[in-house]
This record gives sequence, C-alpha cells and structure tokens, in this order.
Amino acid sequence: MSRTLVTLTAQDLAERLGGVLEHCPPDRVISEVKPLEEAGAGSVSFLANPKYAAKARESAAGLILVEATVDLGDHPVLRVQHPYGAFAQAIGWLHPEPEPAWGAAPVHPTAVLGEGCRLAPSATVGARTVLGKGCVLHPGVHIGEDCALGDGCELFSGAVLYRRTRLGNRVAIHANSVVGSDGYGYVLMEGRHAKIPQVGWVEVGDDVEIGACVCIDRGVLGPTRIGEGTKIDNQVQVGHNVQVGKHCLLVSQTGISGSTRLGDYVTLAGKVGVVGHIEIGSRSVVGGNSVVAKSLPEGSFVTGFPARPHREWTEAQAALNRLPRFMKQLRKG
Amino acid sequence: MSRTLVTLTAQDLAERLGGVLEHCPPDRVISEVKPLEEAGAGSVSFLANPKYAAKARESAAGLILVEATVDLGDHPVLRVQHPYGAFAQAIGWLHPEPEPAWGAAPVHPTAVLGEGCRLAPSATVGARTVLGKGCVLHPGVHIGEDCALGDGCELFSGAVLYRRTRLGNRVAIHANSVVGSDGYGYVLMEGRHAKIPQVGWVEVGDDVEIGACVCIDRGVLGPTRIGEGTKIDNQVQVGHNVQVGKHCLLVSQTGISGSTRLGDYVTLAGKVGVVGHIEIGSRSVVGGNSVVAKSLPEGSFVTGFPARPHREWTEAQAALNRLPRFMKQLRKG
Amino acid sequence: MSRTLVTLTAQDLAERLGGVLEHCPPDRVISEVKPLEEAGAGSVSFLANPKYAAKARESAAGLILVEATVDLGDHPVLRVQHPYGAFAQAIGWLHPEPEPAWGAAPVHPTAVLGEGCRLAPSATVGARTVLGKGCVLHPGVHIGEDCALGDGCELFSGAVLYRRTRLGNRVAIHANSVVGSDGYGYVLMEGRHAKIPQVGWVEVGDDVEIGACVCIDRGVLGPTRIGEGTKIDNQVQVGHNVQVGKHCLLVSQTGISGSTRLGDYVTLAGKVGVVGHIEIGSRSVVGGNSVVAKSLPEGSFVTGFPARPHREWTEAQAALNRLPRFMKQLRKG
Repeated sequence: MSRTLVTLTAQDLAERLGGVLEHCPPDRVISEVKPLEEAGAGSVSFLANPKYAAKARESAAGLILVEATVDLGDHPVLRVQHPYGAFAQAIGWLHPEPEPAWGAAPVHPTAVLGEGCRLAPSATVGARTVLGKGCVLHPGVHIGEDCALGDGCELFSGAVLYRRTRLGNRVAIHANSVVGSDGYGYVLMEGRHAKIPQVGWVEVGDDVEIGACVCIDRGVLGPTRIGEGTKIDNQVQVGHNVQVGKHCLLVSQTGISGSTRLGDYVTLAGKVGVVGHIEIGSRSVVGGNSVVAKSLPEGSFVTGFPARPHREWTEAQAALNRLPRFMKQLRKG
Repeated sequence: MSRTLVTLTAQDLAERLGGVLEHCPPDRVISEVKPLEEAGAGSVSFLANPKYAAKARESAAGLILVEATVDLGDHPVLRVQHPYGAFAQAIGWLHPEPEPAWGAAPVHPTAVLGEGCRLAPSATVGARTVLGKGCVLHPGVHIGEDCALGDGCELFSGAVLYRRTRLGNRVAIHANSVVGSDGYGYVLMEGRHAKIPQVGWVEVGDDVEIGACVCIDRGVLGPTRIGEGTKIDNQVQVGHNVQVGKHCLLVSQTGISGSTRLGDYVTLAGKVGVVGHIEIGSRSVVGGNSVVAKSLPEGSFVTGFPARPHREWTEAQAALNRLPRFMKQLRKG
Repeated sequence: MSRTLVTLTAQDLAERLGGVLEHCPPDRVISEVKPLEEAGAGSVSFLANPKYAAKARESAAGLILVEATVDLGDHPVLRVQHPYGAFAQAIGWLHPEPEPAWGAAPVHPTAVLGEGCRLAPSATVGARTVLGKGCVLHPGVHIGEDCALGDGCELFSGAVLYRRTRLGNRVAIHANSVVGSDGYGYVLMEGRHAKIPQVGWVEVGDDVEIGACVCIDRGVLGPTRIGEGTKIDNQVQVGHNVQVGKHCLLVSQTGISGSTRLGDYVTLAGKVGVVGHIEIGSRSVVGGNSVVAKSLPEGSFVTGFPARPHREWTEAQAALNRLPRFMKQLRKG
C-alpha cells in the first residue's frame, strides 16, 4: 500500500480552490482526503448536501469543503463554490497516482514471488507486488504495482489486477476479468463531466472464486471488498466501495452499484441489478433479473422490477395476466 | 481429449467418503464420474433427489452415491451423508486436471499447426493443441492445452480458449472472449460453498461466429455445445452443459443458465435471460429483455418478465398503463 | 484510413450476382458500397424494403440493387433475387479487409509514436498506426492497423483496438475493453446466416473515458461515434453505426442496438437496453433497467419495460402491487 506522501496547508488549498478559510489556522497541514466519518486532523473532507450538516459538525476532519451558506458552527471549513468538484480536485493533488513503470522483464525486479509459483512467460507482474506461495499465472495475466496475493492463487489468461489489489489465499480469477479498475465517478462542472480520481483499491478474501469477464472497481479513496468464500459468476459488475460479505453468490450478469453493502450468504441470481448506497441483509435471496432499489432486512426473498416480496410479485404477475380480460368484463358488466 | 486415467475401487471410495457399500463388490474398479443416464459399469454416479430413484434404479452405473434412507433395490450403492458433496469430491479424485505447463516458446513444442496458419508473436498455444489449416491468431490470443481447431478459424486479440476446447471449421472468435472457463457449480457444505470441479469442455460447430467479451463455460463432465452456423453477439453468457442448436442467433448481453437446450434457428434478442434445465423449441423467438422461466414448444414467440406469448404481454402492458386511472374511476363510480 | 481501391464495372457486378442491369451503362465503374443517402456516382447501394422506393429514386447512387418488381423509374438498377444478400456480397468484393500482418517486433516498423509515449514491452501496435504525444499503453494492450490516437491517451491492460479505430485526445480505455470489433450483421440465405462484412470503424471524441470489458462495434461501412466528453461505464455494449452525442453517461451493463442516435447529455442508467434505429433526444434520462423501444424527444425522463414517462411507470407499479387485492374485492363486492 505504498503511497507518495503529499501535503498541502489549508492556505494552499484555499488558494488553489479560490475559497475562503474559516475557523482554521492557515498553516494547518492536510495530507489526505477522507469521507466525513473517517476523517482526522490531517484530513480534508466535504459536505455536498446541507442535509448532513449535523454529521459534518461531529466530524474530526481538519477541514471541510462547504458552500458559502452552510453553517457548521466553529468547525474549520473552506468555503468554495462547488464542494464536490473541489473534493475531486483535492484527491488529485493529495493522492497522486504514480506513473506506471515497466522494466524490460515481464516480472519487475522489485516484485517478490513466493515458493513454487508458476508463471507463464507472457504474464507480467508490476513493481513491489508480492505473490504468496504456489501461485499460478496463466499466459497474458497482468498484475499491476503494489499488489499482494496470498498463497495458492490462480489467475487465468487475460485476468488483470490494477495496482494495490489485495487477494487472500486460494483466490481464483478466470480469464479476462478485471479487478481494481477505476470506479464510475464524475462531477458535472461547467458542462463537462470532471473525473473524481479513483485512488482506492480492492480487497478479496480467502477462497473467493471470480468468473470470466467480471469487473470489480476499486474504491474512490478506500477499499471495495469481497468477503471470504464468496463466489462470483461470469460478467458480474461490482461498483466502487461496494462491500460484499462472506459466502455470497453473485450469479452471472449481475451488477451492484457503488457503496452498497451485502451481508453474508446473500444470493443474487442472474442479471440482478442493485442500486447504490443500500444494504442487503444476510441470507437474503434476490430472484433473477430483479432490481433492488432499497435496503432489505436479513432473510429477505424478493423478485421483480422493482423487487418486492417474492410472493407478492408472483401474485401481481398472475393478476396482470388476467387484467386485460378483467377490464373488458368490467366494462361490459 | 487426453486424460490421465485414475482408478479407485469401490472400497477406496467408501473409505475416502466415510460411507457404506451395499450390493457392490469392494474391489469394483471405478474410473469415472458420470450422470445417471450416461453411466456404465466403471462409473460412479449420484442421486441427490430421492424423487428420481426410479431413474437411478435403471442406471447402468457401477456405483451410485445415495443418502442413508434411499431405496434403490439391489443396485450397488455407496451410502454417504451428502451425495452431492461426495460427487464433487469424486470428480476431483477421478478427473484430476493436469497442471498447466508452459515452455519458453509461445507455441508449445507438442502443438501442431496446419498449413498456412498465421500467428502473432504474442499468441500462445498450449501442449498437444492441434490447429487446422489457415488459422489466424491475433496478438494476445491464448489457447490452452489439448484443444482442437478446424480449418480457417480466426481468433482476435485477447480471445482465450481453456483446455480441451474444440472448434469446427471457419469459427471466428472476437476480442477478449472466453471459451471453456469453469461453470458456476458449488455445493454448500458446513457453511462453505465447495467447488464442484468443472472438467468438461466446449464444442463449437462449423461457421460459428462469437462476438467480443462472450463467455461460454465448459460442461461439468461433458461438453457445452454451440451448433453449426450459430452467431453469438457481444457479452453473451452461456452456462455449463448448455446445448445450443444450429443457426441460432444469441443477441448481445443474453445469458443462458446451465444445462438448458435450444433447438435450431432459435433467436434470443438482446438481454434475454433463460433459466437452467429447460428446452426452447426450434424456430422460437424470445423478445428483447425477456426472461424465459419454463420450456417453450417449437415456434414460440414470447416476451416479458416472465416471458409469455408476445401478444399477451403487449396487451397486459397496455392494460397496466391504463390501470391507475381505471382503479380511480371504479372507486369513484 | 488506408483502403485498397477495388473497382468493378456494373456488368461485372451483374454477372457475379446473376442479375439484370437496367438504365445503366455496363461499363460504369463502381468502387464502393454506400447507403442510399450517402451514395454517389461510383457507389452501389441497395433497396431491401420497397416502402423506401421514393428515397431510392432520389439517391445519387450509380447503381441500386433491387428486386424484380420494384419500380425506380429510370434510375440505374441491378435486379437481383436477394438485394440484401447481394449488398453483403458486394461489400466483400469492393471493401476487402487486408490480411493482418505482424512483424517480429511488438510495434510495427511503420507505426509512428508521438513524443513521450510509454509502452509496456508486451503492448503491440499495428502497421501504419499513429499515436499522439504522451500516450500510455499498459501491458497486453493490442492496437490494430491504421489506427490514429490523439495526445495523452491511456489504454489499460488487455484493451484492444481493431483496425482503423480513431481516438481523440485524452481518451482513457480500461482493461479488457474492445473497440472496433465487428457488428452483429447477418442475412439469412438458404437457411444460413451469411455475414454482412463489417468494414467501418469507430471514432471516439476527446476526453472520453471507457470502462472495463466494454464493447463498441465498428460501423458496417462508416463510423460508430462516441462524442466528446462522454463517459462509459464497465460492460456496456454499443452496436454498429450507433452515434452517441457529447457528454453522455452510459452506466454499467447498458446496451445500445445498431444505428441508434443519442443527443448530448443523455444519461442511460445501469442495465438499460435501447433498440436499434431510434433517436434519444438530448438531456434525456432513462432509468435503470429500462428498455427504450421508440424514439424519445429532448429532455425525456422514462423508466420501465417498455420505458414510459417515469411518473406513469411509478404509478403503474404502485397500482400493480394493489391489483391482486383489488380484483378480489371487486369479485366479492
């Protein structure tokens, strides 16, 4: 998890963002961007929605980016026109991604391979990446910089790990899957979608198996997590900052939007869609092709678009089938 | 289709699985795992659902894994606590997958290339794989061991064939597609999803074209099949043991679950989902975005979630659009 | 955009296709296949649906393939049994795709790299491809022949560009995405799906970002276009000849069928499907998992399968939930 440490003073940030500091010493040292709930004295955070002002007031953040009119009491703030856009810019400044550097050899000289690893000659391993014992990399596997793999992992042809991906023990990743690519995060500024730099990573637990052509995005600032023993089928998409619990089943062509959390032993059948920022309780089952649009308690069984209790959905579909005739009869009667 | 022959006696299996043999000589030689209907004297099969006991009684299997209470008359059985889990273990023992072995050269010295093949230098071909005449492998194609390609096949960059894949003549596979990856098969044992080893293969007929980022899983024990002349669009998923007929059209982002069978000239429009273990009759058409949840006779035309005859679906949707006003009027009236 | 110029006379075409020329000098030189609206004196076009005869009469095409009974006045025509099939054959003859040719070096000697490009040793670049300044190609990137990339493009591992792809400046393409693969075009002739050769290309504007495992097909004859500033999430599929406007957002697992046009600032949420040959007006929003089956005016907000105004869909779903009880009550009452 190597990171080049960059620091800026609160005053530097104010000047770069054209904002106004309040309740904050100008020489306060800021070294990282963090969400409100994880922020500390050296963190800059942001408040985009004034609804969450109370949460912001309680945050330990050394500085919070806010709009002109938001009242956070005497909390140190930097007033800017566009807090979310400023947040994106601050990530770029404080969390610069190192330039990729490739040597002539497929395995970078600073990479460390455990005992008994077997690598096809065309597999590549980036700088400072560490592989456990007995890992197998098939032809055309590409592992980025600063990754860490446990023992006994097997990556099939064309599997790609972006930088800083962490795999537990005995993780299998099938062909042409991608772990750790940038999440889908933009902020509309002056008519253009400005990129929110994605500088987090992906953590995959022990005994996870990932099918072919799967995409798991890295978190914005922190991890996207796949819990121990979870099995992911082909062509599944997992958005940034998603937290999947242990022993879940994600069946083919399912997609999970950003920041959603799944408990343990959750089953999402084929082609399920889940919106962002919700929670699906442990041992829930979502029927195939369903769209989950709000949080579900433990042990739910839902189906449909939008998903509702499975039995309600079945009855509603049966009623829908009878509806055209039913309407005709009522009109006649 | 090279295979290392491993054999175990019935007694070996009983000991490894902690089970009890009945009506079976302990020295019976077992050399393969097979489904009930394909099993022979040297096969071990399994019965998970007592509902199919009659079928099991008729099976020629040399040994059947069953639970303690199932009655198969005098058929040779091995009574175990968890027949499905035991079946998974037996596959691992009797059908061990050879370790992948890569030489220094991109084309393994034991591979055979037909006349006029053109391979990019970064394409790799595994041990004992045979290519017909005039095949073209673009940069970054990776073909595993023991594959067989007919004449005139073209594989675009990043296409991956897992071991034992068989292609007919003039098969085209576009970039980053995966043929022959492991199917999605697990059995829940003691709170963990144990893998059912996937040791089958994929057979693709003549003149099949496969788009980009398509996934076709190999069968559990036997083949997944794509019939002659079938055309598969981008990002389609075909599960293990699926049998697709001839001259079918599978449009983009469609998914077919395991063991389902399609007749000939079937069209699945974009984003269709098909559940497992059903049959779709020849010349059927499934409208875009539909979910087929039960078998369809020949010449069906269905749409919806779940799919129903196209006209019924159209009428139901029209009725649904009028429903809110209709309910209001009835309440008033 | 290099192209081997092949020409045929009208007479040549008539002989090869077994057709009859009318109102056309037999020695007219034909050098390209074009749609009716883009055709010129040296073009052959086709009319499959007699409904569009008026449009065909106005076309400047030097020759039009038509059925025996279609009346185009004195427009030069070639009467054939199967105009669409003949069109497919003519593309093959007049627009032959050059054989791919790989040298021993990963970067073809005729490729031109701008200042400051950084290429991993395993990245390959095809003949006559030109890269702007400061492009970055990660390990396992494969770029075909005759491509043109602007300045500052970054392609992640396993990204593939088919021949003739054109990228603007600062385009990012994530791992294992495919740009420029063949569109899904076939014509059923004598019981077989004959391929319509796909000989167009893809044009991607400045500042476009494309996620992982995305597929964008090249046009049949001309370009598929992605407008400046558009952002495409993972596992999206864009069909041949689609025209996406500027600053659009295409969220994960969305699919757009061939020849559809999107205006600017269109948002397609996750898992959306759009049928072919329609238009979606600028600033429209399509809710997640919806299917757009007809053109939408500017500023639309639709949801559902099929998509309808968002509020109507919400009300219809609420009514559907109440429907089973409602039916029961009416029966009792």
